[in-house]
Amino acid sequence: MTGSDIAIIEVGLVDGLQSIEDFVPTAAKMQWISAEVAAGLRHMEVTSFVPAKLLPQFSDAEEVLAHALTLPGLGARVLIPNLKGAQRAVAAGARSLSYAFSVSEAHSHSNVRKSRDAQFADFVGIMEFRRSLEPARRPYVSVGFATSFGCSIQGTVSERDVVDFACRFVEAGADDIALADTVGYATPHQVTRVVRSVRTEIGERLKGIHLHDTRGLGLANAVAALDEGIREIDASLGGLGGCPFAPGATGNIVLEDLVYMVEAMGFRTGVNLESLLELRRWVTGLLAGDPMRGNIVRAGLPKTFKVTS
Amino acid sequence: MTGSDIAIIEVGLVDGLQSIEDFVPTAAKMQWISAEVAAGLRHMEVTSFVPAKLLPQFSDAEEVLAHALTLPGLGARVLIPNLKGAQRAVAAGARSLSYAFSVSEAHSHSNVRKSRDAQFADFVGIMEFRRSLEPARRPYVSVGFATSFGCSIQGTVSERDVVDFACRFVEAGADDIALADTVGYATPHQVTRVVRSVRTEIGERLKGIHLHDTRGLGLANAVAALDEGIREIDASLGGLGGCPFAPGATGNIVLEDLVYMVEAMGFRTGVNLESLLELRRWVTGLLAGDPMRGNIVRAGLPKTFKVTS
Repeated sequence: MTGSDIAIIEVGLVDGLQSIEDFVPTAAKMQWISAEVAAGLRHMEVTSFVPAKLLPQFSDAEEVLAHALTLPGLGARVLIPNLKGAQRAVAAGARSLSYAFSVSEAHSHSNVRKSRDAQFADFVGIMEFRRSLEPARRPYVSVGFATSFGCSIQGTVSERDVVDFACRFVEAGADDIALADTVGYATPHQVTRVVRSVRTEIGERLKGIHLHDTRGLGLANAVAALDEGIREIDASLGGLGGCPFAPGATGNIVLEDLVYMVEAMGFRTGVNLESLLELRRWVTGLLAGDPMRGNIVRAGLPKTFKVTS
Repeated sequence: MTGSDIAIIEVGLVDGLQSIEDFVPTAAKMQWISAEVAAGLRHMEVTSFVPAKLLPQFSDAEEVLAHALTLPGLGARVLIPNLKGAQRAVAAGARSLSYAFSVSEAHSHSNVRKSRDAQFADFVGIMEFRRSLEPARRPYVSVGFATSFGCSIQGTVSERDVVDFACRFVEAGADDIALADTVGYATPHQVTRVVRSVRTEIGERLKGIHLHDTRGLGLANAVAALDEGIREIDASLGGLGGCPFAPGATGNIVLEDLVYMVEAMGFRTGVNLESLLELRRWVTGLLAGDPMRGNIVRAGLPKTFKVTS
């Protein structure tokens, strides 16, 4: 049960910042990324190639990515909403893209005003674009399956749909799939069940999990995923994400709490928790209204915990 | 993975109130118990027979217990610190006692100024007292194993000690043992491991688990226990417990969040979540400084969740 490595993917710079209206200075974003890499993080979603007129927070996507690409050892992923975003990202030098797809038809319409089939067709276009590139420039492409465990608009999301779309995306060329509990509906046994069903069809192409802590089950769901062999877990510093100013909304699982939990369970993340908590204080100062959460920052580390990295 | 019943034991009236200085009126305690039973709770630790001069909050133990004993369907347990407490509890009509034992030698000295062996000798005295009673008056006796997963004073607690003391207590006459993560050090795989080790030696005599949410792992640890077949879980309304006015301290796992989680996983608790949330609001009003926590109260129930009871 111990010893394996886990890739923890910081998504706070996208999931977190997209809900923050005040523009965070580009230099601060770069400093955040550098400090987190210095703390041992090796995987970050650093920016989003969504149109700047929709989300001005990401108007500096090219600059932020360019900085991330200078950091040795960092796997820098960027979010792309569509073909245009993919083209911009590749032009900016991106090596790893993440495409967001909603398994819930209602969420798909609400979020991107498209049906799931139209979203899938867009993805096929992105794959064609990738094939048109010289092999050395073709990026790695993950697909994040939003609302894989339920949807606050339509309610239940069919497990069969999750499996079927996973097969379709992999056949179309997706390098991996990550399952996302976008609205915090998942329960641990459900995570076990859905991961197993998807694994049965696409095997190791199911790589990651993205969990929200809306109802306090985020870490319990992460353990369920770990126990099924998942080794890539999204999280954000201080649980940034959701809309911190909307009552009831809660963000991603808290990155520093996740690092604590998995390290205490004997896994290795490469992350130095003390450096991470120091960075967290700095980011808290950076963002107005203190939208961060977390347990370790309040309770401290147990006497039995060894900071290893 | 579904369908079994789970006994959720409300410990807020002891674990929660013991850290609240202002005396909660006896009538309010009684109303809390009645309302929680009306919401479907069937198991509560209703009071503590600790000396009133040590904890004046429990100076009304006899009255509170007498009220609880009038409520049909309620399994009312009381905490006893020693033989004198057991004698008072039995004289007051208690049918179910919980004796607290610290597996950590350092915690034992700090908490009750006694070695573990002295604590065990006290328990043997309680068992002699029980045998001296007419059979019909002999209470059921559980032993709560504090610091079973680590101790904030001595650090590591030996798993061997947990197993050995479990055997000794069962041989001495304990009806069941519950493992407690008093300081929030447990991790899910550790819960799996310790539960298995203790079960190997005392089988079904290991009944319950008592978890604190200090570092946010309470529900993840509860799932680990459930997956090992544990079906009795302590919790407190709003997570009452610890010392709410001490920064960094956090109480028990949140009862209403636990009910939500296990019901969403397909277990049945008999508890009506809406009634419980209404009661929670009333208890919040009763206690100064709002020492309560929780996720469901903030985020609400998912669209997919059916209130069943």
